[in-house]
Amino acid sequence: MIRMFRKLLTFDEAQAVIRQKLKPKRLGVEKTKLLDASNRVLAENIIATLDIPPFSRSTVDGYAVRAEDTFGADEKNPITLKVCGIVNIGESPKTTVQQGNAAEIVTGAPMPDGSDAVVMVEHTERIDENVSVFTAVAKDENAMKAGVDLKKGETVLKAGQLLGSREIGVLAALGLAKIKVCRVPHVAVLSTGPELTEPGKKLSFGKIYDINAYSLSAAVQESAGTPVYLGVFPDSFSELQKALKCALASADIVLTSGGVSVGPKDIMPKALGSLGKPGLIICGIAIKPGKPTTVASIDGKPVFSLPGHPTSALLAFHLFARPLIQLMAGRKAERDLEVKALAAMRMIPAKGRRTFIMVKLKQDKSGRLVAEPVPAGVSGAITTLAKADGFVEILENVQFVDESEEVTVHLFEMKAVRNAVASENACKTW
Amino acid sequence: MIRMFRKLLTFDEAQAVIRQKLKPKRLGVEKTKLLDASNRVLAENIIATLDIPPFSRSTVDGYAVRAEDTFGADEKNPITLKVCGIVNIGESPKTTVQQGNAAEIVTGAPMPDGSDAVVMVEHTERIDENVSVFTAVAKDENAMKAGVDLKKGETVLKAGQLLGSREIGVLAALGLAKIKVCRVPHVAVLSTGPELTEPGKKLSFGKIYDINAYSLSAAVQESAGTPVYLGVFPDSFSELQKALKCALASADIVLTSGGVSVGPKDIMPKALGSLGKPGLIICGIAIKPGKPTTVASIDGKPVFSLPGHPTSALLAFHLFARPLIQLMAGRKAERDLEVKALAAMRMIPAKGRRTFIMVKLKQDKSGRLVAEPVPAGVSGAITTLAKADGFVEILENVQFVDESEEVTVHLFEMKAVRNAVASENACKTW
Repeated sequence: MIRMFRKLLTFDEAQAVIRQKLKPKRLGVEKTKLLDASNRVLAENIIATLDIPPFSRSTVDGYAVRAEDTFGADEKNPITLKVCGIVNIGESPKTTVQQGNAAEIVTGAPMPDGSDAVVMVEHTERIDENVSVFTAVAKDENAMKAGVDLKKGETVLKAGQLLGSREIGVLAALGLAKIKVCRVPHVAVLSTGPELTEPGKKLSFGKIYDINAYSLSAAVQESAGTPVYLGVFPDSFSELQKALKCALASADIVLTSGGVSVGPKDIMPKALGSLGKPGLIICGIAIKPGKPTTVASIDGKPVFSLPGHPTSALLAFHLFARPLIQLMAGRKAERDLEVKALAAMRMIPAKGRRTFIMVKLKQDKSGRLVAEPVPAGVSGAITTLAKADGFVEILENVQFVDESEEVTVHLFEMKAVRNAVASENACKTW
Repeated sequence: MIRMFRKLLTFDEAQAVIRQKLKPKRLGVEKTKLLDASNRVLAENIIATLDIPPFSRSTVDGYAVRAEDTFGADEKNPITLKVCGIVNIGESPKTTVQQGNAAEIVTGAPMPDGSDAVVMVEHTERIDENVSVFTAVAKDENAMKAGVDLKKGETVLKAGQLLGSREIGVLAALGLAKIKVCRVPHVAVLSTGPELTEPGKKLSFGKIYDINAYSLSAAVQESAGTPVYLGVFPDSFSELQKALKCALASADIVLTSGGVSVGPKDIMPKALGSLGKPGLIICGIAIKPGKPTTVASIDGKPVFSLPGHPTSALLAFHLFARPLIQLMAGRKAERDLEVKALAAMRMIPAKGRRTFIMVKLKQDKSGRLVAEPVPAGVSGAITTLAKADGFVEILENVQFVDESEEVTVHLFEMKAVRNAVASENACKTW
């Protein structure tokens, strides 16, 4: 009787080995145009090279004055000032405001010398070269002083910050058209198996379409990496070795799927062991699904050989490869969005293995969120994953999760909760 | 005394006018490679054109048998079968399993005729042309029947679904290398103002760097649109008219900022009124900030003229333009992520205007989430927005929100809550 023995690492051991042997850290720095910097990670501290605003500006349309000249003015007792000139926006003021003077000014124009406040146009009346002021203004009123928003020399943004529309606005304010950002990891994705046909090609009997190179490429994008789709390779040692060499030369991380089960044709581990040091670092993990997950470190580059089953491959990617890609991209490893729900039925984990049960969220009659296991049907079903909203993680020492027990659901997407909770779904206006 | 009167629409009226006059709906359909379909919206119902799996397959490595031939077998009483052949993966079986026979088979290979179950290799012992079976298997055990995952003719995905890694896996399983997706709206972005200089250029006195064309381009990307950056234009009627014509010809939506306040140089509304029917549909909205927001419909294309102040421009974009872009992209208008918090101080809205107060989230000593208004400082500060985690919306009829009153914070990003709540921030393992 053939019996296969293999030392499986526990989930925690596998994570520790990946941290210790692969030492995930950010890849490097590249320059990018600010226009292309959305959703990139800043790789430098940004220190303001100028005051923002760079000069004192009016924040309204009106008249730049010496505040003290307006003291006492109100609707019934206007004070009349002499209009000494006009300050245009975008230009150096050509006038100086002396005592008793006012300069016409528009929003954003530089405050002329001598002035220290602006009276809004709504509170004035112009008659030829004079202007009547119907309100008093305090010093600095309706004016924005140089450097009040950002001071030259101030650290404005820090390396590691993710750039969204608001941060990009700050960088534009400083006039930076190019900035340093963290390089995005290139992740080569390939599938192995003589039964696999690439989508778009004709399917002959005994073959199935490859799923994993596509779903994993999309998952890489969702994890802030750039997928490099390499397609399907046969289970031949020399072909695989060649493909892996090419993948390692062109990418920062390699993902393969298939060829890691306990079959006579499973040559992936052999191929991985032949390419560089230290080679294989994990050969199987005590998780369900995803047990055959194999990890190698080839001259500093991580290779994840994921199971062939689509659900197992995506889950193992999510658990082990995704955090690595995020760290290499200079991001924090993103924690799953989580929600509490009640188990719709008893969930029994695989003995001695960290077990992940795909669930769909529903609402019960009392409005409580319920996690219903997606019938795994038969192993390998792609629809299992497509129907699930997330997964429940059951630790190795837990015998079972009972019906109606509270569980934490790790969500694939935030919208899952909204879809489950009808009342939340009522989008306010649109 | 000059007094400016303008009929402002309320927030609700403005939304209604946008819905009625712009009738936002999805733009159209285009074909894309499945490899490029991540985060796109499916524009067709997908009906399975084949069974998945397309044939009955073994789910383990072992021996394909007639289940009834194994009945009674156990560790102590193995049943011996004659090995009639081998079934390779990816090939048509060249053997038929007669009574008393077993065919060697690997995971994923097609079940040979005559067989109806598979005995796992771990429960067998091979001696030359015979195999001893140490366990009984039931009919269909360790086999996955054709069509059990997806049946030919079944509707698998529906038009309107957002494509993530899991949906893309399903499409790959069906062999679809190209699919129909909703077209992504192209959004032209331009800034106006003689004081504006494009980032990267030299700044002369009286000028400031343009922020809005950059921050709005990034905001368009965050809203599932493709920004078309057009840059800075002077406040000249003919230049603006030309720029807007070009923008309208090349994009599905146009965003401008600046040139909509109550100043003598504000020619944007005039330019917008000159380009097509019906022209201006909204000239100012009773909101704070964002009051000058102007909206036009030019021969069916929406133009949003946003205020020049960076915070006001991004907020008005978020409130009015973002939902439109999402609907045109075939998505649902995404509801803001929301969190409850206590007001850190009394918040007083602008009289008669829907007021949006930028807030930062903190945790108080008792661990409760607190919303602290970001000091607006002076109007127009870019840092106001960069420091805020979200905003509190105060309705027109509310006099004030008192200190410690519970408010709903609309979040710019999910991570804001995590940053505010230290314990949540402890990322489990990584």
